[in-house]
Amino acid sequence: MSPVSPLAPDAFPVLPAVDGVRLRTYAGGLGYDGRPDLLLAELLPGTTVAGVFTSSMCPSAPVEWCRRILPAGGARAIVCNAGNANAFTGRAGASATEFTARSIGASLDADADQVYVASTGVIGEPLDEAALAVALPALAAAGPATWAEAADAIRTTDTFAKGAGAVLPGGGVVAGIAKGSGMIAPDMATMLGFVFTDVAVAPAALQQALVSAVDASFNRITVDSDTSTSDTVLAFATGVAANPRIEGPESAGWEELNVALSAVCLDLAHQIVRDGEGATKFVEVTVTGAEDEAAAKAIAFAIANSPLVKTALAASDANWGRIIMAVGKAGQRADRDRLAISIGDERVTEHGMMLDSYSEDRATEHLRGDEVSIRVDVGVGNGAATVWTCDLTHGYIEINAGYRS
Amino acid sequence: MSPVSPLAPDAFPVLPAVDGVRLRTYAGGLGYDGRPDLLLAELLPGTTVAGVFTSSMCPSAPVEWCRRILPAGGARAIVCNAGNANAFTGRAGASATEFTARSIGASLDADADQVYVASTGVIGEPLDEAALAVALPALAAAGPATWAEAADAIRTTDTFAKGAGAVLPGGGVVAGIAKGSGMIAPDMATMLGFVFTDVAVAPAALQQALVSAVDASFNRITVDSDTSTSDTVLAFATGVAANPRIEGPESAGWEELNVALSAVCLDLAHQIVRDGEGATKFVEVTVTGAEDEAAAKAIAFAIANSPLVKTALAASDANWGRIIMAVGKAGQRADRDRLAISIGDERVTEHGMMLDSYSEDRATEHLRGDEVSIRVDVGVGNGAATVWTCDLTHGYIEINAGYRS
Repeated sequence: MSPVSPLAPDAFPVLPAVDGVRLRTYAGGLGYDGRPDLLLAELLPGTTVAGVFTSSMCPSAPVEWCRRILPAGGARAIVCNAGNANAFTGRAGASATEFTARSIGASLDADADQVYVASTGVIGEPLDEAALAVALPALAAAGPATWAEAADAIRTTDTFAKGAGAVLPGGGVVAGIAKGSGMIAPDMATMLGFVFTDVAVAPAALQQALVSAVDASFNRITVDSDTSTSDTVLAFATGVAANPRIEGPESAGWEELNVALSAVCLDLAHQIVRDGEGATKFVEVTVTGAEDEAAAKAIAFAIANSPLVKTALAASDANWGRIIMAVGKAGQRADRDRLAISIGDERVTEHGMMLDSYSEDRATEHLRGDEVSIRVDVGVGNGAATVWTCDLTHGYIEINAGYRS
Repeated sequence: MSPVSPLAPDAFPVLPAVDGVRLRTYAGGLGYDGRPDLLLAELLPGTTVAGVFTSSMCPSAPVEWCRRILPAGGARAIVCNAGNANAFTGRAGASATEFTARSIGASLDADADQVYVASTGVIGEPLDEAALAVALPALAAAGPATWAEAADAIRTTDTFAKGAGAVLPGGGVVAGIAKGSGMIAPDMATMLGFVFTDVAVAPAALQQALVSAVDASFNRITVDSDTSTSDTVLAFATGVAANPRIEGPESAGWEELNVALSAVCLDLAHQIVRDGEGATKFVEVTVTGAEDEAAAKAIAFAIANSPLVKTALAASDANWGRIIMAVGKAGQRADRDRLAISIGDERVTEHGMMLDSYSEDRATEHLRGDEVSIRVDVGVGNGAATVWTCDLTHGYIEINAGYRS
């Protein structure tokens, strides 16, 4: 087990209880020994659901299952195992996922088609159905778990458990947990995120709010540019808050729900970056002056994914030439001779050249901290975007040239 | 100075002399102390030229210079400095490049517009024009240099000098040198390649042959997915072989020229991968069964650029789940349930599952070598492509979290 990331929060946050959600965990020995590796969140009948999944062309069996049952819009449970992704496991994988849903469905007296399944861990190894047959009923019968215990149960290479919560001004709460540390890139990541609210929301409205929240959070982070087969974010709304159900953007409470959902997703996404494999710095990259938002995002990710930029950051080396390189390779319009780069508050370049006022000492001083900001204006338009990443260190090599993930 | 790459050839190859090319080197102190950092290849009047340049939106001053003078089709010299890329140096950079061409042109009694310039090294630092004024005349007056000395003079982080040659069956020779080790990605790389032949070739025909050779060589390699501001491949044909000038694909000798030029470019490209920063393995990735060649190339590069695949290779870990992940993230059509993966000669998967016959021991045995082959059939069409890369090791971090490049 790796030591806890130096960028980890001091403690797991205090999250609000969400009425209609019951958490349970169990050490099923499916992926790990001696620690809970199964999570069940039981959901009150009537709970609505929304989901966003990996863009991988080779998705895992659970992702295919969730995609299939999502259109019905209702959920009675989410069950998750850590240590085995059940990806690229053929018919056996699909069978294990369906078995999981049926077993939990039977325990909860719920339709299997309302039981969501997520798996995370090693790709290509079959999930042991005989072990599931023993572990799942025990999971369903386990005592109540806390948010921290739930977040712990879904960890793989994560060095800390991730949770975030929000209280809506008009009543109702949002609480979420997530896992992820490597294989993290735009279009979701090797990450799972489960977000729960007691607010009553129609499935289509919840989906719209979730897509928008994910686009501004989980889809704006990168650790290593690798995209997993298993990425899943699910949002569940139990409706216990008994507000007039939110049907869409015209409904009362829509704005508050979106703000809370976005805040929770962004907080969780930042925690994933802070747990980036080997990370020693949390890096915010903002690009302005691009042709449009998509161009700004592409340039920001070219910077955030560049191994040469990330190794320079690891060394606190104000090697801004590598930022120029990354802007250049992004394939988006940029006016080299109007490029303006800042490292922290230190303005580095203007009109295609280094400023006389630029102080490498001041830039280096900023880079020595563990929260780094890079801003680039590319001088051609009004498009802007911010993404988040971490540095690339020996720790990343250490973890990934060893761990079988 | 890093130790020589374990994948380096035993010695610099014996290259044929190319009539009409005179090499000179000089220690100008422009980028390095105590070693030659300037190269001049003087070319016989009448020499034709072709060029392929970086796709970066922020190209260096010398790249812009070469692009500007290329359409005229004639060359009298190529001059190259190592240690300073003269990129993102504004008007001062353009001025230094033009000064270089004028100074060498004056020494050789040649038109400055026939003097090609290349610079490689740190981005963003001005090139010292006063130092150039002293060094360039000394370079032009230096004694003759060998191919090995020429290849040495253009090195930056390269751990060995790179050269390759070919003899055409019908008469005539091709010799080339290159540099490059990091910031290496498709669409050229932080690399320079200069190829010389004594065969008489019209500029348009030489350009067509060069584009085709580069597409199958330098554009099929990746070390770290980063693309530099300075990538340049130039081909020069002195015409001293006195063959009937090759005007295009219908001309006698066209096929032989293409074969020789492609062989030299591929050999040089492989040497760049073998000198990949921190590399301990030379990796060939072949994708078949894709929708078309472009799709196959995209999938092959997704595998070859994946930090998780490359760290697994560094550890000789037969973690084929990461190959699936990379195929999935490429965004190209692939039939997960027909995916066939081989590591060396060991067949790993079939029909979306691991084969019973698969032996991880045999796969690991292959991965322990320093020449690794990965083959993936994605089962949807006839598109095929091969690309080359290296593993991602602590050495890469070591070099790039220190060296200012």
